[in-house]
Amino acid sequence: MIKLENYVTGKWISGDGEGQTLYNAVTGAALGTTSTKGLDFASVLEYGRTKGNPALRKMTFHERGLMLKALALMLREHLPELYSLSYQTGATKADSWVDIEGGIGNLFSYASLRRKFPNETFAVDGEPISLSKTGSFMGHHILVPKEGVAIHINAFNFPVWGMLEKIAVNLLAGMPAIVKPATVTSYLTEAVVKKIIASGILPDGALQLLVGSAGDLLDHVSEQDVITFTGSASTGKMLKAHPRVLAENVPFTMEADSLNCIVLGDDVTPDMPEWDIFVKEVRKEMTTKAGQKCTAIRRIFVPENKMEDVWKSIGKALSQTTIGNPENEKVRMGSLAGQSQREEVMAQVQKLLASSSIVYGSLDSVEVIDADAKKGAFMSPLLLLNQKPFESKEVHEVEAFGPVSTIMPYKSLEEATILAKKGKGSLVCSVVTADNKIAKDFVLGAASHHGRILVLNREDAKESTGHGSPLPMLVHGGPGRAGGGEEMGGIRGVKHYMQRTAIQGSPSAITAITNVYQQGGATHEDEKHPFRKYFEELQIGDTLHTHKRTVTEADIVNFANVSWDHFYAHTDHTSLEGTIFEKPVAHGYFILSAAAGLFVDAKKGPVMLNYGLEECRFLKPVYAGTTIAVQLTCKEKTEQEKKSEEDIAKGIVKWLVEVTDQLGEPVAIATILTMVRKKDQG
Amino acid sequence: MIKLENYVTGKWISGDGEGQTLYNAVTGAALGTTSTKGLDFASVLEYGRTKGNPALRKMTFHERGLMLKALALMLREHLPELYSLSYQTGATKADSWVDIEGGIGNLFSYASLRRKFPNETFAVDGEPISLSKTGSFMGHHILVPKEGVAIHINAFNFPVWGMLEKIAVNLLAGMPAIVKPATVTSYLTEAVVKKIIASGILPDGALQLLVGSAGDLLDHVSEQDVITFTGSASTGKMLKAHPRVLAENVPFTMEADSLNCIVLGDDVTPDMPEWDIFVKEVRKEMTTKAGQKCTAIRRIFVPENKMEDVWKSIGKALSQTTIGNPENEKVRMGSLAGQSQREEVMAQVQKLLASSSIVYGSLDSVEVIDADAKKGAFMSPLLLLNQKPFESKEVHEVEAFGPVSTIMPYKSLEEATILAKKGKGSLVCSVVTADNKIAKDFVLGAASHHGRILVLNREDAKESTGHGSPLPMLVHGGPGRAGGGEEMGGIRGVKHYMQRTAIQGSPSAITAITNVYQQGGATHEDEKHPFRKYFEELQIGDTLHTHKRTVTEADIVNFANVSWDHFYAHTDHTSLEGTIFEKPVAHGYFILSAAAGLFVDAKKGPVMLNYGLEECRFLKPVYAGTTIAVQLTCKEKTEQEKKSEEDIAKGIVKWLVEVTDQLGEPVAIATILTMVRKKDQG
Repeated sequence: MIKLENYVTGKWISGDGEGQTLYNAVTGAALGTTSTKGLDFASVLEYGRTKGNPALRKMTFHERGLMLKALALMLREHLPELYSLSYQTGATKADSWVDIEGGIGNLFSYASLRRKFPNETFAVDGEPISLSKTGSFMGHHILVPKEGVAIHINAFNFPVWGMLEKIAVNLLAGMPAIVKPATVTSYLTEAVVKKIIASGILPDGALQLLVGSAGDLLDHVSEQDVITFTGSASTGKMLKAHPRVLAENVPFTMEADSLNCIVLGDDVTPDMPEWDIFVKEVRKEMTTKAGQKCTAIRRIFVPENKMEDVWKSIGKALSQTTIGNPENEKVRMGSLAGQSQREEVMAQVQKLLASSSIVYGSLDSVEVIDADAKKGAFMSPLLLLNQKPFESKEVHEVEAFGPVSTIMPYKSLEEATILAKKGKGSLVCSVVTADNKIAKDFVLGAASHHGRILVLNREDAKESTGHGSPLPMLVHGGPGRAGGGEEMGGIRGVKHYMQRTAIQGSPSAITAITNVYQQGGATHEDEKHPFRKYFEELQIGDTLHTHKRTVTEADIVNFANVSWDHFYAHTDHTSLEGTIFEKPVAHGYFILSAAAGLFVDAKKGPVMLNYGLEECRFLKPVYAGTTIAVQLTCKEKTEQEKKSEEDIAKGIVKWLVEVTDQLGEPVAIATILTMVRKKDQG
Repeated sequence: MIKLENYVTGKWISGDGEGQTLYNAVTGAALGTTSTKGLDFASVLEYGRTKGNPALRKMTFHERGLMLKALALMLREHLPELYSLSYQTGATKADSWVDIEGGIGNLFSYASLRRKFPNETFAVDGEPISLSKTGSFMGHHILVPKEGVAIHINAFNFPVWGMLEKIAVNLLAGMPAIVKPATVTSYLTEAVVKKIIASGILPDGALQLLVGSAGDLLDHVSEQDVITFTGSASTGKMLKAHPRVLAENVPFTMEADSLNCIVLGDDVTPDMPEWDIFVKEVRKEMTTKAGQKCTAIRRIFVPENKMEDVWKSIGKALSQTTIGNPENEKVRMGSLAGQSQREEVMAQVQKLLASSSIVYGSLDSVEVIDADAKKGAFMSPLLLLNQKPFESKEVHEVEAFGPVSTIMPYKSLEEATILAKKGKGSLVCSVVTADNKIAKDFVLGAASHHGRILVLNREDAKESTGHGSPLPMLVHGGPGRAGGGEEMGGIRGVKHYMQRTAIQGSPSAITAITNVYQQGGATHEDEKHPFRKYFEELQIGDTLHTHKRTVTEADIVNFANVSWDHFYAHTDHTSLEGTIFEKPVAHGYFILSAAAGLFVDAKKGPVMLNYGLEECRFLKPVYAGTTIAVQLTCKEKTEQEKKSEEDIAKGIVKWLVEVTDQLGEPVAIATILTMVRKKDQG
């Protein structure tokens, strides 16, 4: 029998003893054993902290992102092998696609997210904050990687995605991970980690794997570590209350039970496309992964006068779902992950049946193709009916983690909103309606209790990623019963693995720390025009005080002529009464354009093009007779990666443009973006 | 004897029994008693949830902000009474200023923060997210108030600020609060709440007060509530581990022990201004509030060759600090908050003395003026010396919550950084240096273990708000030992009391929900030019497809002439080799200006002025011969408050400007801001 291996302290080690046996979910055949016995968990943590952490922390966001991209590309080379293992978990091809390629997609997404970060080991967070009258003292925030290890204790249902969606985030943040997948499907996780380690893409200590029990791992966590947990609420609460976790105030992100729901809008009738969209979504959520998804729909709310029509439609759709050997191409729903999972689902169904009845499916039998229904962990989809959702407690509390959902009636949108919230915190809910007013009222009413809400209608259904799919750029997690955690959500997720620190000091000090020019900070001006400096030569704070220009009536008229902008405030002396303008005012865009006329160095040089403009404000009217001057300061530099060998080596440079009048008062301020060539094109 | 009252379920009620006696910290005289016995804590929570929460939740951010402003203005009318009570806590006038006026300042700050939010009951969070190829499906995030109560369990040291810094945030978010101040100084908190309730500014149920034990309050919390705790780590951990808090996944923000430190840069010599700045900061942090601040400096790190010079300088500064009756104007340091606080500090000092010795101050005696040193809770400042900070554990662990700090040597900046982090998570640290390279290295090295880092030098010291001052717009809280919590930090703090929900749907649905136009969403065009519509008349999605303009060589030349921008890419046919341009390209600002020329309605109307420009990108070069057209769409509307009765009623309107060429391809995109008059000037 194969013994799975743990990857710890730089080595593949199988644990002591006989270990726990893992089974093929479809055939019931034994696959191998796992054990973590005999491992020194304290040193596993220490290895991550002292090897993996410093290696990742000294990389920049861009380097970490490219590392994720390399991982994703490498894993894509091994799809056939991974799919073949995935079938053994009971997953169909479509289910496996979500797990394997969805996981790889997460790596790609977080790889791309590097572009939202500077090419630094740390990031700046939010806006600068003025803290003094004369500007000598200011505040800001930075984010640095935490100096510990991210411990991910994962669920059995997505052995690949469950790992990759989490490590993509901590690796981009600059933290190493220890992954402990649920034992029952850990052979697939182990296979992925074997590929990752063999590729040599990650630095030593960046990823460790435990297949089997987590032992006394949590006895050794410390305040710079982060724990995430996905699984049952009871296990999650036990871990969260671990004395060491509490004593060290270790951040603990939990994603647990969730009684997700879907609401059919009162406006939807059987002849509308939204009707079919609704039925299809329910069917999909009940049968994908055999309903073993933390986001699956458990509660179905339908206007009371449409109940029977709806449950018949759903029943019909379910009856067309072929169940059996997931390797058979005709099969749409495979098995549960194992016999014990099926027993657990059945036990939960029994609780639900206290107040519900079965309107589709069977507790005792299931028709399968190409498989033995007894040896494999198969079960029939079960659609339950609960006519009194305000009186039943269990229907809002009991999660049957399989192809099980309960349909319930509602009288008004307000009632539907209250019922949705009776889940006491869910990961996701959906509303199907063609009426955006219903969508708005439901979403704003139910949002307090949901981590994500999907609005489905004929416009978006075709391209919708569906109720059940957490997405890398959207927050995943829900309040209350759902665990109170938040993961992913783009940059938001990365921040969970970083310490946010407020920094205070002089603008020059904050400029030095952040590498972003802060207004009022020290500047440097020399003979060389900043536009004549290559990307590498430019320093944050390099500045230019331009010559001046007296704005004339002719300028305003000429600008109106060339722009065709004859807005009365610029051109009509007789209409200014009741406005803030004393005289015809120069166009704001003229001020911007004239500023460029003052600061641009015309001759061909390193500056390639004008890329964009941000945060521009017009602060004071400029009339004919006003003399303007500009201070141009190099604010921020971001290197660009070459798209090909032939590509020009370059970066984006942000410049602070401050336009003042003859009194020295600011009349306009803006940040402009240029593309600047590197000197070294090698 | 006065019996303090609780304010619960809309009534002032004194608890049952004799209660706990409170004492004047300066004279030892009994002041009154407190009790919460007999209160029904479940109904206190329910009152907040069912009365205060709906009332606040239906207010907009702007309404909530104005409510905070009214609170602040009202409390400013009662300063003499509050100062007079504050002296009884042992606080000097300067200490009381921080507590009382600092707290009121927080109300003003969060009142102003309303302008960063829409005038809605909810807010949009972050950027829209594209989720489909053709654009029919997208994502976004919204924030809605949680539907529970914020429970604030506060420390004794800042009875006013401690309450106001927290309720300012939850009230702006739309959540009610239950405040439980530490009993010993709760009479001052009670006085403030009496003013607040009497003013009638807050809706019923928005604020409740418990003076005395929190009883079984936490047995009744639920998943929509939020708990914050400031105080000792042991109490905090007990509350955090409360079974109900865990079972309901109630967010718990803790701010506990913190061994904050200050580092003297190796560059600083006694002749530099930074030397005096350092000594002054240490003295201030040791003596303000008699050292009873969670942010006070407990550890002082000094280059080993400057140790004796530094401790002598600090000792001298401490010796000039007059101690005694805080009402006496000569006094610079008052008493601790009570006898039990003094006993606790002395017990902690004994622990520190295991590895440190006293270099300034006395354990047994203190010289006071205008007070009885025995009856009042006075103590001498104590400067301790620890020569072996790498060997001593307690110096990085034991917090003596009084005028006590320990000086320690370091050899290199790296050593100083390691020592700073030995606190295992602090609220704040400071570095005093004239060298921004030292500042940068220290800040980036130590940030992982600190919630805030202050860089002090001659440039910012005069305007610095100081090591010990948490500020409303900066994050307050630290990792690990400091509790792992985060408060305030401007908008960041508000989010702790709101649920973030990812929303997905068609651009039209997301536009309807957010009230912000999403690209690709439904638009509406009618006979009336959008610039002719008043603020109230404009609808999100109102759009204008303009006439077109063929850009000519003459336009490019004329624009170069009027702007003076003769950048070679616009004007020099011979220098384009190796650039991305095939021909001289039109100026980006010409495209913006010509777009305005196309979409502006020239005649005087509701649009008052061009206010600014955001998120502008130039997407494709425009050459002579290209024909451009513009789609202008009303994207977002924000009402402006009138500054005076005479002020024009108006709002800011953001417009999405999409410029396309004759192929229909985008050449530029921008968001422009205009000020638009209201029709109703009443």
